[in-house]
Amino acid sequence: MQAWKTLNKRTVLENGKWVTVEYRTLELPNGQTIEDWAWIILPEYVNVVAVTEVGRFLCFEQTKYAVDGVSLATVGGYIEVGEEPLAAAQRELLEETGYSTTEWLNLGHYAVDGNRGAGVAHFFLATGVVKTQEINADDLEEQQIVMLDRPEVEAALRAGAFKVLAWSAIMALALMHV
Amino acid sequence: MQAWKTLNKRTVLENGKWVTVEYRTLELPNGQTIEDWAWIILPEYVNVVAVTEVGRFLCFEQTKYAVDGVSLATVGGYIEVGEEPLAAAQRELLEETGYSTTEWLNLGHYAVDGNRGAGVAHFFLATGVVKTQEINADDLEEQQIVMLDRPEVEAALRAGAFKVLAWSAIMALALMHV
Repeated sequence: MQAWKTLNKRTVLENGKWVTVEYRTLELPNGQTIEDWAWIILPEYVNVVAVTEVGRFLCFEQTKYAVDGVSLATVGGYIEVGEEPLAAAQRELLEETGYSTTEWLNLGHYAVDGNRGAGVAHFFLATGVVKTQEINADDLEEQQIVMLDRPEVEAALRAGAFKVLAWSAIMALALMHV
Repeated sequence: MQAWKTLNKRTVLENGKWVTVEYRTLELPNGQTIEDWAWIILPEYVNVVAVTEVGRFLCFEQTKYAVDGVSLATVGGYIEVGEEPLAAAQRELLEETGYSTTEWLNLGHYAVDGNRGAGVAHFFLATGVVKTQEINADDLEEQQIVMLDRPEVEAALRAGAFKVLAWSAIMALALMHV
């Protein structure tokens, strides 16, 4: 199987460091050419499932612009320029919860949209987390920590209570390891 | 917890029926206003995890523009205008694999990006699938059906072999029900 080739690209929209849209000319393996294929560049981000020594999952209840009502959420945030994904995961966990640990497992990285890009999600599982400092978050959304045990996480996943794709994905993946 | 309010919006980019970008003015619960918040409108889509009576998972090996190399994938595609998500799931399963079933479970719907939207993913689990017609897919990508058993799906998820976020998400969620 052969990949599509990018013949050229031009930027058609820029919204600061947050969103860039390119129109690309692509060549398919059969020789067909596609003009103006929209490619969306969003910052890469991390999500972290954090679990205490006694198996409590650190989650948030929060609002998010793209979802209706309150959602369960995981720790997460954008990777800063030049930052390694693991370092971003460790920073976000500490900033958003005040918890930290030395036990980190990489749960993979995933294209957010298979056609358009829309960023890359990097997932980490942090186990044995303990509270080591106060919360120091700069998020725009209101959020509140909730500690769930495994059956509560499973019930929440079955109910669709993690309403953002990445949160549901990392939670379900993490359960395969905890 | 209060949601952000949309005060107004204007379209700043349109790429056919595939991508629309709006700049929106938002009001946060604390009264703060944000100008030019980029909101990305992509078609909503379905993904389907399809499992035969003997527990074989219908997957694809395929290429996708946003990922390097070959990825494992699930059945999926865009919802057509006026189509119900379940109907789209049933249509895509039949078109892409030739399999069908009467046993369908809704695995929820998820905002693809919590900040920007970028579409909504609707997930379904189809069990007891049987082959009832020939494949009739119109996908641009090359793809090839592979049948995996549960341990192979688990191993693939652990290895990050489902390289698109929605595929990894729905597979991990489906394992909670199969």
